[in-house]
Amino acid sequence: MKTLLKNCKYIVTQNSKRQILENQDVLINGNKIEKIGKNLKADETIDCSQNIVMPGLINLHTHIGMQLLRGIADDMHLKDWLNKKILPAESKLTPDKIYVASTMAIQEMLRTGTTCFNDQYISMNKVADAVKEIGIRAFLSRGLVDIDGKNPTEKRLKETDELANHIKQLKSSRISFAVGPHAPYTCSKNLLIKSQKLAKKYNVLNHIHIAETRKELADSLKNYGKRPVEYLESIGFLDKKVIAAHCCWITKGEIKTLAKRGVSVAHCPRSNMKLASGGIMPLKELQEAGVNVGLGTDSAVSNNNLDMFEEMHTCALVQKHNYWDATVAPAQTVFDMATINGAKALRINAGSIEKGKLADLVLLDANHFLLQPLEKNRIISHLVYSANGSCVQKVLVDGKQII
Amino acid sequence: MKTLLKNCKYIVTQNSKRQILENQDVLINGNKIEKIGKNLKADETIDCSQNIVMPGLINLHTHIGMQLLRGIADDMHLKDWLNKKILPAESKLTPDKIYVASTMAIQEMLRTGTTCFNDQYISMNKVADAVKEIGIRAFLSRGLVDIDGKNPTEKRLKETDELANHIKQLKSSRISFAVGPHAPYTCSKNLLIKSQKLAKKYNVLNHIHIAETRKELADSLKNYGKRPVEYLESIGFLDKKVIAAHCCWITKGEIKTLAKRGVSVAHCPRSNMKLASGGIMPLKELQEAGVNVGLGTDSAVSNNNLDMFEEMHTCALVQKHNYWDATVAPAQTVFDMATINGAKALRINAGSIEKGKLADLVLLDANHFLLQPLEKNRIISHLVYSANGSCVQKVLVDGKQII
Repeated sequence: MKTLLKNCKYIVTQNSKRQILENQDVLINGNKIEKIGKNLKADETIDCSQNIVMPGLINLHTHIGMQLLRGIADDMHLKDWLNKKILPAESKLTPDKIYVASTMAIQEMLRTGTTCFNDQYISMNKVADAVKEIGIRAFLSRGLVDIDGKNPTEKRLKETDELANHIKQLKSSRISFAVGPHAPYTCSKNLLIKSQKLAKKYNVLNHIHIAETRKELADSLKNYGKRPVEYLESIGFLDKKVIAAHCCWITKGEIKTLAKRGVSVAHCPRSNMKLASGGIMPLKELQEAGVNVGLGTDSAVSNNNLDMFEEMHTCALVQKHNYWDATVAPAQTVFDMATINGAKALRINAGSIEKGKLADLVLLDANHFLLQPLEKNRIISHLVYSANGSCVQKVLVDGKQII
Repeated sequence: MKTLLKNCKYIVTQNSKRQILENQDVLINGNKIEKIGKNLKADETIDCSQNIVMPGLINLHTHIGMQLLRGIADDMHLKDWLNKKILPAESKLTPDKIYVASTMAIQEMLRTGTTCFNDQYISMNKVADAVKEIGIRAFLSRGLVDIDGKNPTEKRLKETDELANHIKQLKSSRISFAVGPHAPYTCSKNLLIKSQKLAKKYNVLNHIHIAETRKELADSLKNYGKRPVEYLESIGFLDKKVIAAHCCWITKGEIKTLAKRGVSVAHCPRSNMKLASGGIMPLKELQEAGVNVGLGTDSAVSNNNLDMFEEMHTCALVQKHNYWDATVAPAQTVFDMATINGAKALRINAGSIEKGKLADLVLLDANHFLLQPLEKNRIISHLVYSANGSCVQKVLVDGKQII
């Protein structure tokens, strides 16, 4: 079936020229964008004369199964937060609760303009079921931890195989399986190496947390005599399939390694600030080295919402703040992070509005008060610095209207 | 007339015990809260069974006349931003445009839960007219600058008198006049002293920017041999009527002075971060010294929206980030800043839901997805870390429903 987004007031294409088009149509054929132009025709038409049409936002790092825990623990030191609040609460999360949490989180993401997310958590079969049902796009990995001795490495790897099989059975091109070794400090060397092999075997992404806290850095130096990225490089873990969340505490040398190996980084500024990680991912140096950087919300326990507009806003602010330089992280750069850079990291043909791309699209209310005064050359600024998820009116994933 | 907020699902009282009440009524008589309890009666009833009722937010520092300039200048060094973009654009702002900007900004504030704001700008008669018409509460001051030589001190002071007269003629208890010397680096010593006397004469607030940037600090040391607060103290400027915006670059000695003089500070974290002021207002030390600190958005040019929920969120995040301590700026502290601390600074009987207080109230949609899971002990967390202005459903100012 063909669907036409008719007479779009503005189209934020995010193509290579970053064009913003006025009063044009977007023709969708099945799950892809077939054409952009004037006076196009289709079976079904959506009037977009009062809409800004933009690519769906891509949340490159989250744990949506934690959604029910929002607000149970804030303003605490990381160790207390984790040991006294999060781990006890997590131990009570049944698969059914994970399913409920997932449906809530997916609704929140869609309503706030996110069309695709990259997740790592527990009971991922249930997350996959919710994704299948509601219609968002997702990359799902079972979080793997074995260093505590409670979880044998082989058991973890088996669970990963089971998730791969479950997702295969769901038969949806929207749902992808990924491997998810939790972090260099929670996984044995054996698990990290086997995860990497598994990602190679399945030809899928390898989603990991790297260098989130000072403690992780200090422990890594103590245990391995190497910084986290150096350690992972030394065991052959890093390659183009790796998505590394956080990267707050990394050196220029480590940045060179990330660039050389083609690793993508998921920046989670609000989570890092809330948990007082201290370090902030060095955007300028990563960009200069050519590392692909996307944006993620992390979970609703450390954020506490999944609104990628607010994440963009805070990203721009904290980067400027950290460098004492208002020219760092300009609006277009940040909007790229939340769209095309995310798509690049996930290796999907999305993140911009161009012929042949996936029809993952967001229609904003052009009359929303947060978007005024509305002018072509102010749109990117408004999207990053003023808008939030409440500006979202309609959302399409895979060419289908979900919201 | 009496209005009843009937069967409120939750009431965030912000009283001295910070109680959150369940299933109680709020009785409003005229512009004040008469009683809180069960089974109360009134002429007019608003069903609040699906609402969280909270005190209206107080924006302690903004320039709403700049609203039309939102998005014209971002990601620029402060000097270029001001000289190449803002000043030329401001020179084209006619009183009529200031009126339009004000109506837009007031609508945005009300819709996002702000019931009172403290403003300093130009064409303030027009801002006052918009405030009168729409029904928000406001403190308005004409921004005074004379150090450029273009504006004689006496002319500025005369404009201030004119604004006082205009506001008097509007005969609204919602609109208060204030004196507004712009900053120690833009006002002559003479203007600062006369402003202070004028505030004393009228018995009104004295609204000023202090220590926003490193340059201001360096220039102050160069020109006066004193830091900004030290300089203002040396000329007898500081007292309980002063509201000092920013205070990013202040020492512990200056904090002692602010505490001794009873000055209130308006923290504007998003503006400071966006303009890369570098310094962040030292909340912990100010609190320890007993300084009253509220929260402001600054203008839509340096923010770029007036949503105080987002300001609270960023305030909590950047304070934790700056101290490398997640326990700094806990949710309740930040919510206090945006409510009762603002009221204290402005010397109005508001900011909490108690008998005798002004009925400036916000009704949130208790079913909004950003407020889930909704539990009594998670509400303050949700308000600070997850909510934004889109959770606001109804707003009352002075006992009248405006939104």
